[in-house]
Amino acid sequence: MAELSRTTSVPVATIKYYLREGLLPAGRPVAATQAEYDDGHVQRLRLVRALLVVGGLSVAAARAVVASLDAAPTDVAAALGAAHDALPPAVPPAEDAGPVRALAAIEALGWDVEPDSTGVRQLDAALAGVDAAGLPIGTERLAVYGAAALDMAELDVGGMPTTSPTAAVHHAVVGTVMYEPVILALRRVAQQHVFRRLGSR
Amino acid sequence: MAELSRTTSVPVATIKYYLREGLLPAGRPVAATQAEYDDGHVQRLRLVRALLVVGGLSVAAARAVVASLDAAPTDVAAALGAAHDALPPAVPPAEDAGPVRALAAIEALGWDVEPDSTGVRQLDAALAGVDAAGLPIGTERLAVYGAAALDMAELDVGGMPTTSPTAAVHHAVVGTVMYEPVILALRRVAQQHVFRRLGSR
Repeated sequence: MAELSRTTSVPVATIKYYLREGLLPAGRPVAATQAEYDDGHVQRLRLVRALLVVGGLSVAAARAVVASLDAAPTDVAAALGAAHDALPPAVPPAEDAGPVRALAAIEALGWDVEPDSTGVRQLDAALAGVDAAGLPIGTERLAVYGAAALDMAELDVGGMPTTSPTAAVHHAVVGTVMYEPVILALRRVAQQHVFRRLGSR
Repeated sequence: MAELSRTTSVPVATIKYYLREGLLPAGRPVAATQAEYDDGHVQRLRLVRALLVVGGLSVAAARAVVASLDAAPTDVAAALGAAHDALPPAVPPAEDAGPVRALAAIEALGWDVEPDSTGVRQLDAALAGVDAAGLPIGTERLAVYGAAALDMAELDVGGMPTTSPTAAVHHAVVGTVMYEPVILALRRVAQQHVFRRLGSR
């Protein structure tokens, strides 16, 4: 465990806490006070750390993500769905009418998706929110944001391993949750850049 | 207050809570048990509701955003900075070395920004997070995400009112916090679309 701690720069006390919380599988016992940890432990520990510290997930949410990895899904499409399911924000089941706002937006964008998926429900909830605030997403904004999202997704999915479902889920979880803060920060910095450019004209 | 509640569909008890928490200014008293609320109250109430319910801000964070609106900044550039300052995620001051990761990324993108701003510190923290998780943003990913962020920012800033600083801050706050969940949801749905397209080949 001391070696695992050195390799990952995660304190031993933190590793023990993750073990207790079921976020990290136990090592293989080799002596009364020693256990062996392998490369899988190093990767899992980095992931858990990232989910909690960078992603800001609760322990319960991180446990659900880790469970989706351990469930060893049978195909990669299911893996991507499971990853999105496990990540926040938690989205309540769609209303009786179904995710009508999201489906209209997706049709306008010409995308082919599973209508009854967590991603679609998340989009529907986000669109309902801006509608309620009196700031509905117009045609132009949907087109611009949609094109930007598609460019990012092409890169995200292009790099996804398609051989092993477990590797694909790991990639999807990590890529989704870890890069989101980067994307939002880039947009804020870009706003500043565009604003300064306008001001200096 | 009953009329304000009807207009905004926010329950009277909730309005009273916002008044107590300093999120909404008091109405103009016109009788012992009556006060007058104007259009400004309706807009402010919609904003507060959006920040708390859609943006998921804490009451304290929403109060800081509202304060940045009431501070009536003297110019629009300062207004944009104040808006970003007030919004989560809260970012600790940069380390002694300064936000070196963010500044390197911004130079690679060719953007012109204020190096000592909240947006830059947010970007630096996000980049430090993915580095720590062993998933640094490479040149290609930075270029793709940066271009997507710039496209969105052009639209965001293009629609920003430049006449009144207060209107600009309002626009920046609302646009930043409200559209972020939409952008993240669109990316997840786009991933699914790209993935299905690849799978059907």
